[in-house]
Amino acid sequence: MGIGVDVVDLARFAGVVERTPEIVNRLFTHAEQHSAEGHELPLMSLAGRFAVKEAVAKALGAPAGMDWHDCEVTNGGQPKVKVSGTVAAVADLLGVTTWHVSLSHDGPVAIAYVIAEDRNI
Amino acid sequence: MGIGVDVVDLARFAGVVERTPEIVNRLFTHAEQHSAEGHELPLMSLAGRFAVKEAVAKALGAPAGMDWHDCEVTNGGQPKVKVSGTVAAVADLLGVTTWHVSLSHDGPVAIAYVIAEDRNI
Amino acid sequence: MGIGVDVVDLARFAGVVERTPEIVNRLFTHAEQHSAEGHELPLMSLAGRFAVKEAVAKALGAPAGMDWHDCEVTNGGQPKVKVSGTVAAVADLLGVTTWHVSLSHDGPVAIAYVIAEDRNI
Repeated sequence: MGIGVDVVDLARFAGVVERTPEIVNRLFTHAEQHSAEGHELPLMSLAGRFAVKEAVAKALGAPAGMDWHDCEVTNGGQPKVKVSGTVAAVADLLGVTTWHVSLSHDGPVAIAYVIAEDRNI
Repeated sequence: MGIGVDVVDLARFAGVVERTPEIVNRLFTHAEQHSAEGHELPLMSLAGRFAVKEAVAKALGAPAGMDWHDCEVTNGGQPKVKVSGTVAAVADLLGVTTWHVSLSHDGPVAIAYVIAEDRNI
Repeated sequence: MGIGVDVVDLARFAGVVERTPEIVNRLFTHAEQHSAEGHELPLMSLAGRFAVKEAVAKALGAPAGMDWHDCEVTNGGQPKVKVSGTVAAVADLLGVTTWHVSLSHDGPVAIAYVIAEDRNI
C-alpha cells in the first residue's frame, strides 16, 4: 500500500502550458483532454488530472520510465484512474489491486490524493 | 472504503457568506457555528468544517440528497464527524464503520481529508 | 490507525523563520537541515518537512510533550519519517507499525499527508 498527495498551482500550470503547448499531448490522452460530451476541458480540469497522475506516481514510489498516458484519469462525477502499460506493470509488481482517488480545486490550487490498496493482504 | 479531499479558498468562502449569509444556517448546525464556550466561530473555522463535510461527501461517492446538517463536525482538539439521517444512511449502505478526519488551514486555504473505513472487512 | 494532513503557507513560514531564526534548530535536527550532499536546504524544503511533522503529530492525536526532533524527516527521493523518543512512545502505545508519508509543494503552499497504520490488526 502506498499513498500520494499532489498540489498544483493553477497559475504556474497555465504558464507552463502557454510556453510549451505540446506538453498537453504528452501528459494527457485525447480522451482526457475532453469531456464526455466532446468539449475541450478547461485548464483547471487538466491541472486537477495532472495532480492525480502525480499522486499516483508517488503512491507507486515514483519509479522512472512511467508514461503519463498509462495513468488515465476519467471523470464521471467522481475521478477514477485507469492504469495500463508502464504504470500497470509497477502496480502489479507492488500488488496494488484498488485505487482510491480524490480531487479538489478551489482558489489558487488543485489537490489530489490517492491511496493504492492491496486487497489481497 | 472511500477517501475524500477538499480544499476551500478562504477568500472565496468569505465572499459567498457575505453575499448569502443565510447559507451559514443551511450548512452548519447551531452547535457547529459555536465553540464549546459558546462563542461564534470565525469564518476560517467554518471554512474548515465545510471542507470536512465536502470530503465526507466525496468519500461516500457524493450521492444526491444529503443534508449538510447530517454530517456534523465537532472539535475537541481534533476534528471528528458525527453522521446522522441522510448521511448515516449512505454510510450504512456502504458498510462504513469508522471515520478518520484531518483538517489544516494556513495562508489562503483550508484542507480536509477523510478516510471512510470498513472495520468489518 | 490515524491520519494527518497539514498545509503550510510558505510566505508565513518564511516570516516566522526570519523573525525567530532559532526556531529552525528547535524544529529540525542538523541532518534535516541539510541535503545528503551537506548543502543547507532551502526554506521551501524545511516548510515541507515541518508539514510532515505536523501531519504525524495529528495522526497520533496531537498529544502534548512531543519533541520535534523525535520525528525526523528523511528524503532519498521519497519522504520518510523516523520516529524516536517521545514520538515513538506514543506510536507504540497506539500500535502504529507503519508510516505512509506523502508531500507536495507548489505555488504558495506545502502539503503533507500521513497515514499511521497498524499492520498487526
